[in-house]
Amino acid sequence: MTAVDFAGFVEELAKVAGDAIRPFFRSALGVENKSKLGMFDPVTEADRAAETAMRRLINKTFPAHGIVGEEFGSDKPDAPYVWVLDPIDGTKSFIAGMPAWGTLIGLMKDGAPVYGMMHQPFIGEWFSGDGGSARYRGPAGDRKLTARHCASVKDAILYTTSPLLMDETERKQFQKVEAQAKHSRYGGDCYSYCMVAAGHIDLVIEAGVHSFDIVPLIPIIEGAGGIITTWTGENAYNGGRIIAAGDKRVHAEAMKLLR
Amino acid sequence: MTAVDFAGFVEELAKVAGDAIRPFFRSALGVENKSKLGMFDPVTEADRAAETAMRRLINKTFPAHGIVGEEFGSDKPDAPYVWVLDPIDGTKSFIAGMPAWGTLIGLMKDGAPVYGMMHQPFIGEWFSGDGGSARYRGPAGDRKLTARHCASVKDAILYTTSPLLMDETERKQFQKVEAQAKHSRYGGDCYSYCMVAAGHIDLVIEAGVHSFDIVPLIPIIEGAGGIITTWTGENAYNGGRIIAAGDKRVHAEAMKLLR
Repeated sequence: MTAVDFAGFVEELAKVAGDAIRPFFRSALGVENKSKLGMFDPVTEADRAAETAMRRLINKTFPAHGIVGEEFGSDKPDAPYVWVLDPIDGTKSFIAGMPAWGTLIGLMKDGAPVYGMMHQPFIGEWFSGDGGSARYRGPAGDRKLTARHCASVKDAILYTTSPLLMDETERKQFQKVEAQAKHSRYGGDCYSYCMVAAGHIDLVIEAGVHSFDIVPLIPIIEGAGGIITTWTGENAYNGGRIIAAGDKRVHAEAMKLLR
Repeated sequence: MTAVDFAGFVEELAKVAGDAIRPFFRSALGVENKSKLGMFDPVTEADRAAETAMRRLINKTFPAHGIVGEEFGSDKPDAPYVWVLDPIDGTKSFIAGMPAWGTLIGLMKDGAPVYGMMHQPFIGEWFSGDGGSARYRGPAGDRKLTARHCASVKDAILYTTSPLLMDETERKQFQKVEAQAKHSRYGGDCYSYCMVAAGHIDLVIEAGVHSFDIVPLIPIIEGAGGIITTWTGENAYNGGRIIAAGDKRVHAEAMKLLR
């Protein structure tokens, strides 16, 4: 069974998550602060309802598979197949009513990401990839995702969710890239990475990224011909400081600036 | 004829604009840099096609009305009725493939905004208001827009499109509010203002805002019970430094911090 065989199941997962989330978007929410550090890190009812629905479906369909989820932690994380779930990536956008958030679903096989999906159930957009190719379906059509060429940072559109999510040292390193980029913009969460895959953004640089935020996006970006690593060039799937680019030249040049 | 009688016509305008814009979103664009200062300020084919379509419809239906548009300047700006058009507010989001942009259509009567609409033709969302009430229609339903209560800045969700759009003095003043807000986030353009009207965001603070960016949003925010002025409390419809809030207590407190 190859990764591609899971595509239909992942779509089913995304659907049950979307059905759980949609009623909560743009309505009064019970937001609780789960962070010990007092940072604003909302957990919504929607987040929990969606992860519960996805876990139920995985346990029923593939009882031997492991699950790592944003809300309810790890279950059999050493199984050959492990699902990585972030029901709402971009919770701050979500609670502000903004549209740039999505459900992330990833599949790891023997420790490496093999399939990923970003689904936006409010807009009805689907981005998926298996590392070899990537696809889009939604109001903009049904098509292959292809990252675009970009020769250097000075020609690049750069996104980061917020420089406030970086520590001071990271922010200074980031600003060295920002100073050279053609155009820098904040916000985006999972959307920025999907837009690298779709060929509309050239570079995403972030810090403090969780594993469950990034695993589902790796097969999409790589499937579209992009590149995603840590700031020092290691595998992105453990999270941390992440750099994604549509063109390896921009990736290499930005990595140098981030040193 | 009251402002409300124009509602159906404004919807027609939004439709012709949306039809002109949609084919260009998430596709290769001819972006040109119109700024003399070398800042990144893209004009898209979509922007021009949409404004042309709206101007044609206004000229045909209300030949005596004036028009002020982002792309093609002013025509009879001293007429009793003047349309204020920004076909794509959030062009940087647009060219990056991000969903937070919209078409803004405003109507001024005798120099004051009397009706406004924000339409997002990709998602299919409509926000409108006449200063006395405001409505939403889209994937989140069909309902009245009501700004929410918020007692003080420390409880407020704050948005600004980008601190990079402020000069250094403005940014320092802004950061005094940001330091006290419960949560500060960047990005949004017209969406932030609509989310104040919808009761999901408490405060938007921006600088360098154009008149055509803000006129269409004033009747929506005021119609939802919110407040929008310049940083010094003047009428917002000339643009400049803008502060919008869902609750007048937050507005007053933030204005003090911005001094």
